[in-house]
Amino acid sequence: MIFDMKDENLIFVRFDTNDDFFESLYSVVEKYSMNAGVILSGMGMLKDFEIGWFNTEKDVYEKIKIDTPHELVALTGNIARKEGKPFAHIHVALAGPDKKLVGGHLFGAKVNITNEIFIYKIDSMKFERVAYGSFNRLEGRYLK
Amino acid sequence: MIFDMKDENLIFVRFDTNDDFFESLYSVVEKYSMNAGVILSGMGMLKDFEIGWFNTEKDVYEKIKIDTPHELVALTGNIARKEGKPFAHIHVALAGPDKKLVGGHLFGAKVNITNEIFIYKIDSMKFERVAYGSFNRLEGRYLK
Amino acid sequence: MIFDMKDENLIFVRFDTNDDFFESLYSVVEKYSMNAGVILSGMGMLKDFEIGWFNTEKDVYEKIKIDTPHELVALTGNIARKEGKPFAHIHVALAGPDKKLVGGHLFGAKVNITNEIFIYKIDSMKFERVAYGSFNRLEGRYLK
Repeated sequence: MIFDMKDENLIFVRFDTNDDFFESLYSVVEKYSMNAGVILSGMGMLKDFEIGWFNTEKDVYEKIKIDTPHELVALTGNIARKEGKPFAHIHVALAGPDKKLVGGHLFGAKVNITNEIFIYKIDSMKFERVAYGSFNRLEGRYLK
Repeated sequence: MIFDMKDENLIFVRFDTNDDFFESLYSVVEKYSMNAGVILSGMGMLKDFEIGWFNTEKDVYEKIKIDTPHELVALTGNIARKEGKPFAHIHVALAGPDKKLVGGHLFGAKVNITNEIFIYKIDSMKFERVAYGSFNRLEGRYLK
Repeated sequence: MIFDMKDENLIFVRFDTNDDFFESLYSVVEKYSMNAGVILSGMGMLKDFEIGWFNTEKDVYEKIKIDTPHELVALTGNIARKEGKPFAHIHVALAGPDKKLVGGHLFGAKVNITNEIFIYKIDSMKFERVAYGSFNRLEGRYLK
């Protein structure tokens, strides 16, 4: 379940256990009609997540899935649109039971316990993801 | 010793060698009468720190203490109140001599050399930590 | 090649493949006449990077160079001046092919594919790096 608050352009959202990370994030993007945004902070725990490292030579993501809940120690990302739909580019750093960190490009995750996320909505810009082969480049224009 | 500056809602603080991380942070929270805030950036080094991974099944943090100074490469967190007192939820990513990262939920730390931290104070909100068993959930309300 | 946009004090920059990280960042600092700033978010990939861990006892950085492209999962940093020139203090967390994270103080890097970075320019402050032995402390004053 999503709890959210807004102070001018700063949006605070809390996701709860078993929420789907991307579904929850995109529902917030739609609720606030975001065309461009940046995640200022994100923490909590993730489980059942899939992360990837981009193999530049082979032009493909090498992915792994991890079920074990991990502490979400850094959540970096931004919000754009691709063909009208919300598109979030998300990287994560996650700590496991041994306190060692894994991470990379986030493809999917479930929330464990809680996620506390702060997003800054950029009213004057529209970000669009434009495909160049397998890479979706972040392009932007001013709305005014 | 704490050095601090403020530009509207953005607070910059610098902590110095041997400062206690949480004592220093809470003194800043009190000085600026913060009821809600989010850490936008934090870096420097920590030593004598304790980090934990939450074991969801056992409902307990599994903690380790590390004395060796580590580079603080990501500091994620937010500021609330619990029963009137400052409550900071802090996650860290830390690099050791081998450049590998460890991290998790931060329970305590001393500053090594310097900490450079930027906090955004949210004037319109009050965040409160409410205990649900061993978990303190972040709840919020508008002040105006 | 640098793509940049600005919304009041928020600057978005995108660096592209093979751009030098620090040269690109400093050109942005100069373009926007920044005397103080903080990186709010940074992601993408880096290659040919050099990271270090500060050995406090020996007062020296222990550095390693890594060529392999890594996912940039956390970019933490701030912008100051030292003797008039731009000075960025940058820490990174980077994920390799095995999804394990390495990181520390960033000394140099090339961009791989893309870097998407958001910087907040602090108009009312001037940050200066002042040398105390081998350590450049962040000091600040108000411009008005």
